[in-house]
Amino acid sequence: MNKETDFSEWYNEITEKAMLTDKRYQVKGTNVWLPYGWKISLNIDRIIRDEMGNNNHDEVCFPTLIPETDFNKERDHIKGFTEEVYWVTKAGGNDLDVNLLLRPTSETAMYPMFSLWIRSHADLPLRIFQIVNTFRYETKQTRAFIRVREMHFFEAHTCHATYEEAEEQIKTDLDIMNKIARKLCIPYIVCIRPDWDKFPGAKYTLGIDTFMGGKTLQIASIHQYGDNFSKPYNIMFEDLDGKQKHVSQTTYGMSERLVGAIVGIHGDAKGLVLPPSIAPIQVIIVPIYTKENRIRVETECNELLAIIKNDGIRADIDKRDIRPGNKFYYWEEKGVPIRIEVGEREVSSHAYIIKKRTGGSADVGMKTASSIIKKVLDDISDTLFENAKKTMDNIIIEIDKRDAIKDTEGIVKVPWCGSESCAHELENIPAFKIHGIPYVEETIDSKNRKCVVCNKQFKNHLVMARTF
Amino acid sequence: MNKETDFSEWYNEITEKAMLTDKRYQVKGTNVWLPYGWKISLNIDRIIRDEMGNNNHDEVCFPTLIPETDFNKERDHIKGFTEEVYWVTKAGGNDLDVNLLLRPTSETAMYPMFSLWIRSHADLPLRIFQIVNTFRYETKQTRAFIRVREMHFFEAHTCHATYEEAEEQIKTDLDIMNKIARKLCIPYIVCIRPDWDKFPGAKYTLGIDTFMGGKTLQIASIHQYGDNFSKPYNIMFEDLDGKQKHVSQTTYGMSERLVGAIVGIHGDAKGLVLPPSIAPIQVIIVPIYTKENRIRVETECNELLAIIKNDGIRADIDKRDIRPGNKFYYWEEKGVPIRIEVGEREVSSHAYIIKKRTGGSADVGMKTASSIIKKVLDDISDTLFENAKKTMDNIIIEIDKRDAIKDTEGIVKVPWCGSESCAHELENIPAFKIHGIPYVEETIDSKNRKCVVCNKQFKNHLVMARTF
Repeated sequence: MNKETDFSEWYNEITEKAMLTDKRYQVKGTNVWLPYGWKISLNIDRIIRDEMGNNNHDEVCFPTLIPETDFNKERDHIKGFTEEVYWVTKAGGNDLDVNLLLRPTSETAMYPMFSLWIRSHADLPLRIFQIVNTFRYETKQTRAFIRVREMHFFEAHTCHATYEEAEEQIKTDLDIMNKIARKLCIPYIVCIRPDWDKFPGAKYTLGIDTFMGGKTLQIASIHQYGDNFSKPYNIMFEDLDGKQKHVSQTTYGMSERLVGAIVGIHGDAKGLVLPPSIAPIQVIIVPIYTKENRIRVETECNELLAIIKNDGIRADIDKRDIRPGNKFYYWEEKGVPIRIEVGEREVSSHAYIIKKRTGGSADVGMKTASSIIKKVLDDISDTLFENAKKTMDNIIIEIDKRDAIKDTEGIVKVPWCGSESCAHELENIPAFKIHGIPYVEETIDSKNRKCVVCNKQFKNHLVMARTF
Repeated sequence: MNKETDFSEWYNEITEKAMLTDKRYQVKGTNVWLPYGWKISLNIDRIIRDEMGNNNHDEVCFPTLIPETDFNKERDHIKGFTEEVYWVTKAGGNDLDVNLLLRPTSETAMYPMFSLWIRSHADLPLRIFQIVNTFRYETKQTRAFIRVREMHFFEAHTCHATYEEAEEQIKTDLDIMNKIARKLCIPYIVCIRPDWDKFPGAKYTLGIDTFMGGKTLQIASIHQYGDNFSKPYNIMFEDLDGKQKHVSQTTYGMSERLVGAIVGIHGDAKGLVLPPSIAPIQVIIVPIYTKENRIRVETECNELLAIIKNDGIRADIDKRDIRPGNKFYYWEEKGVPIRIEVGEREVSSHAYIIKKRTGGSADVGMKTASSIIKKVLDDISDTLFENAKKTMDNIIIEIDKRDAIKDTEGIVKVPWCGSESCAHELENIPAFKIHGIPYVEETIDSKNRKCVVCNKQFKNHLVMARTF
């Protein structure tokens, strides 16, 4: 398996070999989370929960089933999802009076409740999130963690007194995104999606994309709904001036695609490379013993394990009766950040060599093991992020000739006049997708830039790339 | 609301007033978990995860949707669930080729995969669990946490080389149950369910019941499947003797009923009383200030909070601009185990009075606050468990006259000859349900006991009670 020459095959193979998922489940596009993969996912959930808690969001859990009648209240929204919805039409032996759908996302489940919860300005802002599974009947080819029909999903929903306060929330969401992505060592770009590609029902959508295997992968999105949902769902509050007003709403979503991104961005020919923040095992200790010194070596391993676990490091000893070389191979494939071999020399010296999954090593003694290991884990995290960031920065290229786009690898930034017709022209380039305009356009010389389609005055860059 | 005279109304009211759940969701029998209730549920999940981890179970997550074809492989099982199943028959605009059901429990999702995973004795024992939502189209009246149509659910599944090893697993499960229930301060009894009331597909079922509001509530069940599932699902292994054999299986299930039991067992006229192990807030600090000393009081509160939070105690300060009395009332209703008031006197002395939700108080100084609070939390836990245990022990009564059963409050133990026909006679007693025979029958004088129906020789007690 070669990541560079056949990313797709490499990705599919590694997700199975590292025992993250089993794709042989009997319903197409829904996979079994195996223990190792699920631990990674729970660790990501923990990071998300911590960040959302720090930012005044309460966690809730809404039902999976949504009545067709509530779903139908927001026309644009239902139009966007109608081809992707699973329908429950029977229960027991009976046809249901009102069909129920499995949530593809929870606006239409939550907002009828919001209209009961919110009465006055004192109830605002309302900030909640949930981590649940959602269901979309994907018609495109499915792929583990990236395009699945049952998806592990995070969704935050907020309500505000004014559109401006909702705008502030979106800035906070981008800060949260920044912190979470840094912990997962994932670089990304933020684009304002084109109007014709925004989330159904949104005023505008921010798409957050990373890059791997020659394509972008959307890993998060943030939406400004304004009053697009609060009007049909009647979510109103009495303001300080005594008037009834509709709330302004935002949402922020992420999913198990974060697992896919971690696999795809950091992995290599040997297997996974896991960011320390979410590695189920951060340090694997491998005993190297002969018949004679087995007990001494295992005692040393146990002592070291007890010390570093006590200091909050996730660690284990591989005591299996297989050859050390096989253990090295096994834990490299699983992406464990640090390996420590303990043999006769280590028993004598109580000193060890830390081998980093990202290359290189460091020396530690037993007494200072925890503090140095923590520092090395931070170093590994920095290395992973910086390498990924550098790679991503390098493949973002400005292209000012329309014909050159189709042959470009990476993410292209195309000078554009701002007209929808020119954008639609660019959409005809095979495999390339318009991601929108940069959320923050860097300071550039706009005078000398012309639209690559009509040659009129530059207004924005359009970001384009092949995408998953 | 009076718990003693109208438990049902009291229970329904308290689950809403303490903001655990919102029952106004638009699909009958599926409720919204509000932040406070969901935190309690996540804390229970954490306790379960810890215990299962300590006992060599790996956590997985299987898909929600099960194909009708797999579901139908085990006849007894499908017969048991067929009236309770939600059916997905359409996706997008199309009818599905094979209908999918929402898992009511996951045997039929997991076992086709087990047959792929297990090849040899080296793959055994297999021990996994998951915490997911399950779906049952309940026809009886629904009630928050106790009888719902979408249920937060824990299920452990194990595979073993022999029936005897599966029996050992069941003993381990009972140990785990004991530890978890103790942390939740829930007493219980274990019965072997009658053969005609066991889990569909099981060799036998252990029902684990607690008691509240004059009725038993089943809070867990453990099943010995033997090869009842491994035969139809073809789960086989090559044994040491080179022969292909079917595995023996067990399952162990619990659900959000644990939340219902905590509410119903410990709550009182003032509201919830939460076991410290799962209380989202273990200590609430209430500042008592005047205009003059507000800053000093709040500083003292902040210092105390920082100290005890740093020592791992879940605590908060109620800084709302409402009267202290209203705060006391609010946090009592929410069942917070400890309240500390901080006013002028406390600012001067750096000493506080700990008020226990279960009654009584203790004194602490700032420096020793954490260690004493931890001890008091343990005391509260002991008190809750002991009180509940005493209450439950007191209502378990042996009744040796058939006519006296119907008028008995509590759990009755009825001398029984062991014949199914006598048991069915007893089933005619209105509202009473046979729970089975005690898993462990205490040493008793069996010679002088006769079956309450046929007056023949005693074999076992039959446990009977009104039930939720």
